[in-house]
Amino acid sequence: MSTFGVLGTGAVGQMIAGKLIDLGHEVLMGSRTMDNEKALKFAGSFPGKSFNGLFADAFQFSDIVFNCTHGVASLDVLRSVGKENLRDKLLIDLSNPLDFSHGMPPTLSICNTSSLAESIQSEFPELKVVKALNTTWCGIMVNPGMIGGGDHNTFVSGHDESAKQRVKEILVSFGWMEKNILDLGDLTAARGMEMYLPLWLRIWGATKNGAFNVKIVS
Amino acid sequence: MSTFGVLGTGAVGQMIAGKLIDLGHEVLMGSRTMDNEKALKFAGSFPGKSFNGLFADAFQFSDIVFNCTHGVASLDVLRSVGKENLRDKLLIDLSNPLDFSHGMPPTLSICNTSSLAESIQSEFPELKVVKALNTTWCGIMVNPGMIGGGDHNTFVSGHDESAKQRVKEILVSFGWMEKNILDLGDLTAARGMEMYLPLWLRIWGATKNGAFNVKIVS
Repeated sequence: MSTFGVLGTGAVGQMIAGKLIDLGHEVLMGSRTMDNEKALKFAGSFPGKSFNGLFADAFQFSDIVFNCTHGVASLDVLRSVGKENLRDKLLIDLSNPLDFSHGMPPTLSICNTSSLAESIQSEFPELKVVKALNTTWCGIMVNPGMIGGGDHNTFVSGHDESAKQRVKEILVSFGWMEKNILDLGDLTAARGMEMYLPLWLRIWGATKNGAFNVKIVS
Repeated sequence: MSTFGVLGTGAVGQMIAGKLIDLGHEVLMGSRTMDNEKALKFAGSFPGKSFNGLFADAFQFSDIVFNCTHGVASLDVLRSVGKENLRDKLLIDLSNPLDFSHGMPPTLSICNTSSLAESIQSEFPELKVVKALNTTWCGIMVNPGMIGGGDHNTFVSGHDESAKQRVKEILVSFGWMEKNILDLGDLTAARGMEMYLPLWLRIWGATKNGAFNVKIVS
C-alpha cells in the first residue's frame, strides 16, 4: 500500500484515482476548493482509502502526485500549491496543453521548442517531473488490456532516472507490459509525446473510436 | 504504366523514384540544376524509363508529382516552378518541415496552427495537395512488408477526394494494405501528421532503429 495525490477531478483524475484505490492504495484527490462535488463524492466512496482536499493537500498527503488537471491550467495549479510544498516530490504529468479557446481543432498552448512538462520542470526545479500516459484515452491508461491483448506501447520521459523507474513500476501495476513501456530519455522528449496529440485527435475523428493506441512495429 | 515526377534527389526521392521504376512507370527526377549528379545517375540507370530535369520539368512530365524536397525548402522549390505550371497537378507531399538550423533536436518550421502541406496548398491553390507517407522512414514507405508482415498504418489527408483516392491506389501499389491506409480527412490533418515527427525522432533515438512504424490497436 502506498499513498498518492491526484490533481484534478475530471475524467482522467477520477480514472487514475479509482485505479489506485482498486490496487489497494490511499489517494487524496486535490482540487481548487474544499467543496468540489466530484472530489467529495470520490472521498466518500471508499472510506479510509479516498480523501479530498486542496491541490496543496495532495502534496502533503503523498510524495507521488499525478497531474490530471487541464494542461492550460497546470502551471497555475502548481503556483497555487507553492514551491516550498513541491520539494523532492514526484509529479507524474499526464496532461496535454490543449487550448480549445480558438475553437476546434484545439492547438497546443506550448510546443515545438518546449512542452508543458518542461515548462513545469523549469518553473519548479524542486519537482521531479516525469511525463507519462498522456498519449491515450484515460480508460486505456489504467486498463491497457482492454485492447489488443494489452500489447501496445506507452512512453515515459524525465530528467530523474529513479523517478522514471518508480513511474515504470506504477505503469506495470496498471497493467502495462514492461516491454511496452518505452523510455524516450530526458524530459525534452515530452515535446514529442505532447505533439502527438493533434494526430491522436485526427485518428479518433477518423475512426470514431477513442479507445485505441499505437503499437510500435519493427 | 504511368508517368510521375519526383522533386528532390535525396534518400526519399531516390527511394520513391526507384520504386516507381520497379513498378514499370516512367519517372522524371527534378532538381535545381540540370547537372545534379544524383539525378543524372538516376536518369542513366534505366534508359527510356528514368529522366532528369529541372523542378519545373517534373510537372511538365506528369500530372502527379511527389514532393521529396526538404520541408524547409519546399515552398521555394514550388515558387521556382511557377504557379502557371502547377494548375490541376497532384502534389503528393512527403516532406516534413524539420528545421535543423538551431541544432538537435530539430524543430518544425511550421506547426500547430498550420502545416507545410497547408502552407503549400494556401500559396498554390491550383495544386491538389495530398499529404502522405511522411510518418515513416523512406525504406518503409515503398516496402511496408519489410516489418510486421506489412500490417501497420499510414495516413493520408487532403481537400480533394479524387486526388486522395488516386494516392491511396498508389500506396496500395507500393504494398500498403488498403485497410491500413487511414484517411484523416481534409488537409488540416497534415498538422497532426507532421507534428508526429518529434515523437518519431525520439522513438528512433530510444530504439536505435529507424525501420519502425506504428499500428493502430483498438
